[in-house]
Amino acid sequence: MPLPRRRDPDRLLPADPRTRDIARDLYRSVSDAPIISPHGHVPVEWLRDDTPFSDPADLLVTHDHYVTRLLHAAGVDYADLGLGGHAADPRDVWRILASHWHLFTGTASGYWLEEEFAEILGVEGAFGPDTADHFFDVISERLASPEYRPRALFEKFGIEVLATTDDPLDDLSAHASLRDVLPGRVLPTFRPDKYLDPDAELFASNIEALLGATAQPTSFAGYLRALKERRAHFIANGAVSADHGVQQPETADIDPLEASRLFDAVVEGSASVAGKAAFRAHMLLQMARMSVDDGLVMTVHAGVFRNHNSQTKRAFGSDTGHDLPVPTDFVRGLRPLLERYGLERNFHLVLFAVDETVYSREIAPLAGFYPSVFIGAPWWFLDAPDAMARFRSAVTETAGFSRSSGFIDDTRAFLSIPARHDTARRADAAFLARFVAEGRIQSRDAERVIADSVSGQPRRVFKL
Amino acid sequence: MPLPRRRDPDRLLPADPRTRDIARDLYRSVSDAPIISPHGHVPVEWLRDDTPFSDPADLLVTHDHYVTRLLHAAGVDYADLGLGGHAADPRDVWRILASHWHLFTGTASGYWLEEEFAEILGVEGAFGPDTADHFFDVISERLASPEYRPRALFEKFGIEVLATTDDPLDDLSAHASLRDVLPGRVLPTFRPDKYLDPDAELFASNIEALLGATAQPTSFAGYLRALKERRAHFIANGAVSADHGVQQPETADIDPLEASRLFDAVVEGSASVAGKAAFRAHMLLQMARMSVDDGLVMTVHAGVFRNHNSQTKRAFGSDTGHDLPVPTDFVRGLRPLLERYGLERNFHLVLFAVDETVYSREIAPLAGFYPSVFIGAPWWFLDAPDAMARFRSAVTETAGFSRSSGFIDDTRAFLSIPARHDTARRADAAFLARFVAEGRIQSRDAERVIADSVSGQPRRVFKL
Amino acid sequence: MPLPRRRDPDRLLPADPRTRDIARDLYRSVSDAPIISPHGHVPVEWLRDDTPFSDPADLLVTHDHYVTRLLHAAGVDYADLGLGGHAADPRDVWRILASHWHLFTGTASGYWLEEEFAEILGVEGAFGPDTADHFFDVISERLASPEYRPRALFEKFGIEVLATTDDPLDDLSAHASLRDVLPGRVLPTFRPDKYLDPDAELFASNIEALLGATAQPTSFAGYLRALKERRAHFIANGAVSADHGVQQPETADIDPLEASRLFDAVVEGSASVAGKAAFRAHMLLQMARMSVDDGLVMTVHAGVFRNHNSQTKRAFGSDTGHDLPVPTDFVRGLRPLLERYGLERNFHLVLFAVDETVYSREIAPLAGFYPSVFIGAPWWFLDAPDAMARFRSAVTETAGFSRSSGFIDDTRAFLSIPARHDTARRADAAFLARFVAEGRIQSRDAERVIADSVSGQPRRVFKL
Repeated sequence: MPLPRRRDPDRLLPADPRTRDIARDLYRSVSDAPIISPHGHVPVEWLRDDTPFSDPADLLVTHDHYVTRLLHAAGVDYADLGLGGHAADPRDVWRILASHWHLFTGTASGYWLEEEFAEILGVEGAFGPDTADHFFDVISERLASPEYRPRALFEKFGIEVLATTDDPLDDLSAHASLRDVLPGRVLPTFRPDKYLDPDAELFASNIEALLGATAQPTSFAGYLRALKERRAHFIANGAVSADHGVQQPETADIDPLEASRLFDAVVEGSASVAGKAAFRAHMLLQMARMSVDDGLVMTVHAGVFRNHNSQTKRAFGSDTGHDLPVPTDFVRGLRPLLERYGLERNFHLVLFAVDETVYSREIAPLAGFYPSVFIGAPWWFLDAPDAMARFRSAVTETAGFSRSSGFIDDTRAFLSIPARHDTARRADAAFLARFVAEGRIQSRDAERVIADSVSGQPRRVFKL
Repeated sequence: MPLPRRRDPDRLLPADPRTRDIARDLYRSVSDAPIISPHGHVPVEWLRDDTPFSDPADLLVTHDHYVTRLLHAAGVDYADLGLGGHAADPRDVWRILASHWHLFTGTASGYWLEEEFAEILGVEGAFGPDTADHFFDVISERLASPEYRPRALFEKFGIEVLATTDDPLDDLSAHASLRDVLPGRVLPTFRPDKYLDPDAELFASNIEALLGATAQPTSFAGYLRALKERRAHFIANGAVSADHGVQQPETADIDPLEASRLFDAVVEGSASVAGKAAFRAHMLLQMARMSVDDGLVMTVHAGVFRNHNSQTKRAFGSDTGHDLPVPTDFVRGLRPLLERYGLERNFHLVLFAVDETVYSREIAPLAGFYPSVFIGAPWWFLDAPDAMARFRSAVTETAGFSRSSGFIDDTRAFLSIPARHDTARRADAAFLARFVAEGRIQSRDAERVIADSVSGQPRRVFKL
Repeated sequence: MPLPRRRDPDRLLPADPRTRDIARDLYRSVSDAPIISPHGHVPVEWLRDDTPFSDPADLLVTHDHYVTRLLHAAGVDYADLGLGGHAADPRDVWRILASHWHLFTGTASGYWLEEEFAEILGVEGAFGPDTADHFFDVISERLASPEYRPRALFEKFGIEVLATTDDPLDDLSAHASLRDVLPGRVLPTFRPDKYLDPDAELFASNIEALLGATAQPTSFAGYLRALKERRAHFIANGAVSADHGVQQPETADIDPLEASRLFDAVVEGSASVAGKAAFRAHMLLQMARMSVDDGLVMTVHAGVFRNHNSQTKRAFGSDTGHDLPVPTDFVRGLRPLLERYGLERNFHLVLFAVDETVYSREIAPLAGFYPSVFIGAPWWFLDAPDAMARFRSAVTETAGFSRSSGFIDDTRAFLSIPARHDTARRADAAFLARFVAEGRIQSRDAERVIADSVSGQPRRVFKL
């Protein structure tokens, strides 16, 4: 029978006693600061409708591909977890998680879930096969109560800003409906990948829909006007950023005639592989141009090979755990974009990577020169305490603290938001405490940096 | 005169007192566990013949390219070490090592040798120029005694499983002769590189020998049958895995007609560079297919540029210290293979790298999704305490502990086996103790993980 | 009002008390050792003329692209700092630095400047907007006094060897004039990039000047003789090394006829992109050949994309903060060179990288085999305490300490030289202390290693 488990108040802080004391003070100075989440994937409908979360499995397992992927690796069939439209009893799904709980020892996902159990859901004891039903029952009870409905949690979490990620054709009425309803802002984010990448599924019909929605002709000029118009709609509805997911951060400066020709070819479906790549690279540069014009912060999430396994994709769809990092080259890839717009003062470009070699080699050096470039917080597989420590170590000596984005949770797992921000605050406290203990910075500098990192920094970078 | 040197019982454990206490307890819980060595290069003849080791230089210097390479870098001529068939007096070789012993400070090789001196060979005092002869004499005396013969050491080391690496045409009689003779198993491993890589030396005659030994015709079908037959022979003799060393982990799914055409071309010697690469990549996929069928665990050692220096190769042969790592791309390279076989439940694919950037970027993410993929222990240049700490830090937050291979010594240096496993156990204890001290995992989880890592984990991954 | 700030005598040493004690002893054993600086960019004229430094801004800000780049990233216009020939009042420049001083928290540049303020310039208190004028006034006063003139500082710093970096056509009279004038040597370094790279600005006229100065005909043979002659001139004037900055460490072994043809094409300007690359790669190999002949140590600084932003280049020139690292491949790139000359005993090749992934993957393995190859100290963005710790961790277990170059400051910032060497000594003390505390090496070995690293090591590697 597992023993009751209590959260260690000093969790994630360094073991050395003196460093820990410093870290604890730093952490406490920001532990209760409001949450600013300028990029993430919480469905806005949850907040608009404020319907109770259905059950523990649906909320904490089925849609969290960090969690399902590790179960999958251990041999669990996605169908048994209810993925791909398969029916699965929530309690059974939950028991599968519980019986595999030992797999999560030491992982970020395991840590977050334990945080959620203890800090948000208030379930006592250790999770595992023997306590699976108890946890399921207690959590189910919690989710049925009004204080666990999305808006109540939003308030309880102390969220000041929450950005969602949205289709450019979204009317954003959900966001509009939330204005003045919540204690914090819910902002849309313009995410145009499927209208920019000729290899996106249904690209031609995506373009058709975009042009139709904006009453633009099928021409490169019309296409650019359509994108611009939708960005304006987003801005009018509170958006501060446009997000771009690309396998490689390639950009290309192409003359308008050639760009127009490429547009015709990709729409017709007659473009070569090279033509499609050139179009994609040019559109990333065009998005930067529009950001210079309209002020939307440009975020780039690069270096992910999406849908590595076709069979899983066919059976269970995208975002099912087989998006995998590849080496990334920001310095050469972004050069055409930065040649054009890198020195623009109103332009903010935040770079996120899953190839951590770029931190010291590329992103910190870029951000330490270009006024437009900011260092995105550790992303995806790197959004975890050790990876955060490596990140800070890799970028700080070159770029200091002022060029970072502030923490980005980038999550759809609504309940994990406080745990993720708390983790980042503890990790920053640990890092800064080491610098203080090693006599590299003064305590008061560490206090200023950590306070700024949870408030001023994300506000400046994301123009909040 | 160097002072006597005693092994620190807490060696490799973290300096922080509280973390060290935790680490010590974890280490002690596994320090005496039997050794499971599912991949290595000990010559089976040593155990078959059980002849005494000839002398300290032959045993500990000449054949250990980790050791000879650093002497070479310091200007020692390989001929003076007895490489390349050159005659060298063992005592002279030994004195060369001793007079260069300071070079090994801080290296893994230096650490292992000191372990062997103190823990296995029982030589007192510090090794160095002044004590070279003393060490030579004592070790020589030890090696002449029955308790230092290979089988006695095998038993003394507590080896439960030892895998060798063997040519597919080996009759494996040596392995058969050892059945029920030793307290542990000695398993062969199928290593077919020289029959798969058209750029291997004497490739055409290798193929001829393979087909001859299996009475197969010179055709792609015959070739595949020959490989399958030899694998069956290995399995019948206890093999659990097939090992593949490749410069790049490229795989290719090629239709049978084209594969057959490529086979003809590589055998005739008429294949282009691209044709040879395609054949090689396709054969890696074919080996996966056979592993799916016959159950042999597939291990891939990738990212090594072999024989970087032609002059050294000509004069002293292969495995003489100039195999060098290059960047490796598993995510794209293995995709064809994983598209076909990545979801097969009986398929185990263990990935070893010398490019440590792939740990967090590729191998942990792959192993955290594909049920077939396991994370190989730090290999070769990375088989050392700091590199192990970086490895665990890089993979754990994404993939936990359950997706690792368990420790692999991969060595020909028989006497170093206990030192290497002990190092891994200490490194894991150190890593886990930090996670406990930082409040990230519970002590009992750390105990479970470390116990599993020396026993259950390698048994499951290698189907032992 | 900022509090007075005192330097922590244990700065950069590990927090753990026992490890810190060991580190402190190690550090103290070398803290006063003379400075050997075998590669750097201090203008020799400063020492020749011994004119007082003009003002704090010119000395500490304007020419230090580590400092100006971070101000630039924060939105400061380079013109306001006096770059690109723009007039700027030194006090205004200084105030800009002061008002942005918080940006430098945690950076190497911030640390060095604080060291310079406290340890060399003797200014009390904390630097910042409120104390900017005080600092400016005190430093100005210092700079006007004789003891702050270049030669006095050279002596005060305890510099035993200082290498400058010079154009091959430099007559080196400045260096000659300093012989027997200073308590240490000032050596020139042969840096021929602009005569080797067909893409260098004014390449054709550079070649013309080179051939003119040496009275050689416009032919490949004449060109090689010209380079050889200028190297001889450098050697006659005390040079011990030739330095090469390349984007990629590509080398090519090309037959003389083809090389001659390529020479003609690059001089005429008719070479293709591939032809220029081949020429550049071949000339790196030729430089190795000359080093084998004349004994100049060959240093290669690889992996930097120079002048990333054309607009900044046009307006403010080179070396203005937008040289950015790219991935580097030493193992394959240097192979032709190492095939030819890697085993030459008199040949020393020191490899510097800004892509830290190569430390464990390529440079340590290369240096652990080739007697000619040495591991360059962490360079540029990596010349900072955490990066140094990562560097030592990455290379030591493979290559020990004997294959490193010793610390290289590579700086033009004359006043930062003591701070940089002190940082390296502290970082090495911290690293070695950890190895002692973890029972991996003995105290006396750590003492030997750190003593050697500041004296014997750079002397051997750079043939001083």
